[in-house]
Parts: sequence; structure tokens; C-alpha cells
Amino acid sequence: MSEVTTRTVVLGVEYDGSAFHGFQSQKHASNVQDALESAIGRVADEPVRVAAAGRTDAGVHATAQVVSFKTAADRSPDAWRRGVSSLTPETIGIVWSRIVDRAFHARFDAVWRRYVYVYSDAPAKPVIHRNLVAWSDRELAHEPMHAAAQCLLGEHDFSAFRAAGCQSVSPCRRVESVRVERVNGYIAIDIVANAFLLHMVRNIAGALCRVGTGDLSEESFEKLFDARDRTKVPPTAPPQGLYLVGVGYPGLELPITPPPILT
Amino acid sequence: MSEVTTRTVVLGVEYDGSAFHGFQSQKHASNVQDALESAIGRVADEPVRVAAAGRTDAGVHATAQVVSFKTAADRSPDAWRRGVSSLTPETIGIVWSRIVDRAFHARFDAVWRRYVYVYSDAPAKPVIHRNLVAWSDRELAHEPMHAAAQCLLGEHDFSAFRAAGCQSVSPCRRVESVRVERVNGYIAIDIVANAFLLHMVRNIAGALCRVGTGDLSEESFEKLFDARDRTKVPPTAPPQGLYLVGVGYPGLELPITPPPILT
Repeated sequence: MSEVTTRTVVLGVEYDGSAFHGFQSQKHASNVQDALESAIGRVADEPVRVAAAGRTDAGVHATAQVVSFKTAADRSPDAWRRGVSSLTPETIGIVWSRIVDRAFHARFDAVWRRYVYVYSDAPAKPVIHRNLVAWSDRELAHEPMHAAAQCLLGEHDFSAFRAAGCQSVSPCRRVESVRVERVNGYIAIDIVANAFLLHMVRNIAGALCRVGTGDLSEESFEKLFDARDRTKVPPTAPPQGLYLVGVGYPGLELPITPPPILT
Repeated sequence: MSEVTTRTVVLGVEYDGSAFHGFQSQKHASNVQDALESAIGRVADEPVRVAAAGRTDAGVHATAQVVSFKTAADRSPDAWRRGVSSLTPETIGIVWSRIVDRAFHARFDAVWRRYVYVYSDAPAKPVIHRNLVAWSDRELAHEPMHAAAQCLLGEHDFSAFRAAGCQSVSPCRRVESVRVERVNGYIAIDIVANAFLLHMVRNIAGALCRVGTGDLSEESFEKLFDARDRTKVPPTAPPQGLYLVGVGYPGLELPITPPPILT
């Protein structure tokens, strides 16, 4: 009996979240995972299951989701990229590919995830960009948003920003950096953490939006966070403002890709 | 018998062309005109027919399409803007409104139309922006495109860039200005003319793209134009790169609105 040699392939995946009911495979609903596994399976000529760094919700975009899979198929990195790209719908693209150490796992080996949340505060509600940004009907001041967000840095209990349905064992996460800036006229909330709870970025964005309008002071934002009570926090911001833009792994340098509307 | 006083209302309209089979009313296909007339009719409380400055094709966007209509309904400009906006689908927005001279007609009074055509020449095909730009799989040099385009200036027979189905009596149009620039990493072809033939901008964009890749020299572009033979010209560029961004009327100052991806 000959031993089958397997290898692990890693793909950087861009997708338009407005075309899917989230990343994760589910029956009776269009999702990124099923579309990817179907395309990869055709290139590999065998069934394949992917692991992903982030399970993005319905409507949430990715410029650099990272997925990995084991396969016996021997193809060049570029053959994987071009082959899978050509077999996915136009709402999914493969932006890079790597052949890595066999033990690599896109979800379990990730040491940080980076998300960007984008608000428009233009006078008129976005029409052409309606699926690419969230909208605030009032102007947002990014300096107080940035100042307020700094209390999130470090290891904390994020229960205040955790959705009711969250399955995580622990409510603790470690935020490595958070910046709020104005880019191309938009407000961009750029946040890096070891991992995120369900709806954590969107709940933080919703609360920071109130800081930006002046409805919530920096001190009140910090008090809400410290109180660890989701019911006291402003509504969750909508999914279309959110982009998964990069994932970190020890010893593997991968591109960080900003949302295209910010470039 | 009392005479009914009518007034003419003008609206600046933004829409996502990828959601419609073109501007013009047609049976059995979603179009901008029907959606607008339905919303305006509800605000006016009477049936309304609109005239539009440009009949954009399926997939073509507008940031500032201009429509006008006569109505007996007496509303403030802002009531028209907000009322119609609230009754149109999220793929259409009203960005401004004016009450003007009764004789005004959005189509017949327009003295120029301005369109912007946008190419991405990034290495990867756009995914999140797939409906907002056209894509060239080869890099585009904007300087030769700009230089070549200057031969279009002035009054000319544009038969070379006219679609087979064009209904215009004359193939002559007057181009007032044409500029090709790199904006936010994209190639933007900005063109103003008294009016345009069917597919004229998209045919010009398709030919200029070949100049940008180096496949067509400036001299060959000018020869193709002078030959007035559509069959010799490169393929029509796709609709999703095209935006109607402004319309000119004597004595009426209206906003010019660049495509949101260029701002």
C-alpha cells in the first residue's frame, strides 16, 4: 500500500458579502464556504473541506479572508489561484495562494484578525454604495471616536459588545490596536484582536457611531464597556460596513488588503 | 371654470445601473423611469410622466441624471426630494430638486451631457466593485489615452463609435472636452458633448483601452475615428464602467457629481 502524500493549501479570498448569507456552510442558503469547496473540489479532483480564519455574517465583506485545506492534488500556487477563481461566482475572488506546512490550519493557527468598519456620513444616503458602507444621517467626528475606542485596548471581558447568540466559551478577547480615521471622506474603524466575539465589531461600531454624533461621551462609552451589559449598548451597526481585511499567523507574512472604497 | 396652474419640477437622480434594464420605461423589465414615475405620482397625487436628459443603457449608472415633469401639485423642492426618495427603491436616490420655469424640459433643453467611464487595471479582477468599474487585465497608460482622445474634440461624424441600433437622424456630435486621468488608482475617461449617440462613450472607451495597453497607436486611433466604420473599431466597453455625472442647461447651475469610487 502506497502512502498518499497530502499538502496544505492556503488561499486569500475576497468576497462581496451582500451576495451571501454569511461565510459558513448551511442548507438552503447561498454561502461562501459551499461555493469555495465546490470550486476547490473541481480543481483538486476530490472532495475538500476548508477551514476559515473568520466566520463572517450575512452581508459582511472580506478582502482577505484566509482559508486552508488539505489535499492530495499537486498543483502550483498560481494554478490553485487561477483555477479556483475561474470556478467561483463573480462575487468571490482568489487574490493569492500559498502551499504551506502540512500542519497549518487557517482558524486554529490565526493569532490575530483585522477588521475595518466603514461609515459614510454624507448628507444623502448612499445609493450606488449602499452595500459597501453603513450610513449615519448625522455627521461623525472621528477624533472623539478614536479617543473613546482606546479603552478597548488589551485583554478585557467584551460582554458589552457580544451578541446574545454567541457560542464562545469565554467573553474575553485581546484588542491589539484600534484606530478611527477619516479616509476618502469615510469614517474607518480599524481594529485588530486575537479573535472576536459574535457581532463584536458591529456592536463596537454602533456605540462609537453615537460617540461620533456627540450623543455618547467618551466617559459614557467606557462606562458602557465596563458594565458588560449588552442591553445597555446602542444597536448593532449593519453588516454592509464591515470588512475582514487581514489575518495574522506566526512565521507567515500575508497581505493586508484595505476595503476597495478606501484605496 | 378655473384654470389649473402647473409647475415644472426638476430632480437630480442617482441610481445603481446594475439594478435596472436601463433608464427608459419598458414592459416586463425593471427600469428607472417606471420606478421614478410611480414614486413621483404618489407624491404628486396624480399620474406624472418624466423627461430625462440621458437614456442610459442597462448596467449604466448615474450620479446626476436630470429629469423634469409638469404637475399641478404644489410642494416645496425639499418635499419633492425627500418624498420621492422615500418611495423609490434603495437603488435610486434623489440628490437635489428645483422648481423651474414652466417651459423647462430636461431632454430638449440640455446643451451638454457629461459622462465618466472608469477602468480598473489592477492585477485581480474586481469582486466587491465588479458592478462599479470595467476591468482591463493589462495595465493602462493614461497619457497616450488622453493624447489620442483629443482628436475627438469639436464637431465630427461619430459613425465609428455609433452602435448599429442607433436611432439618431445625424451621426454628428460636438465634443466639448475629453480628459483621461488616473484617479484613486482607476483610469477615468471624462467626456462632455452636446449629446451622445447610442453606445458612443462605451465605444470610445473600448478603443481608448487598446491605446492604453499599447495595442493601438494614437495615429491608428485617429484613423479608426476618421474612417467612420464601426466594424473596424475594438469591442464596446461594458456598461458597468459608465456614469452619467452631469447635464448642462442655459441659465441653470446644477451640481456635477463624480462617481463615488473616484471621490
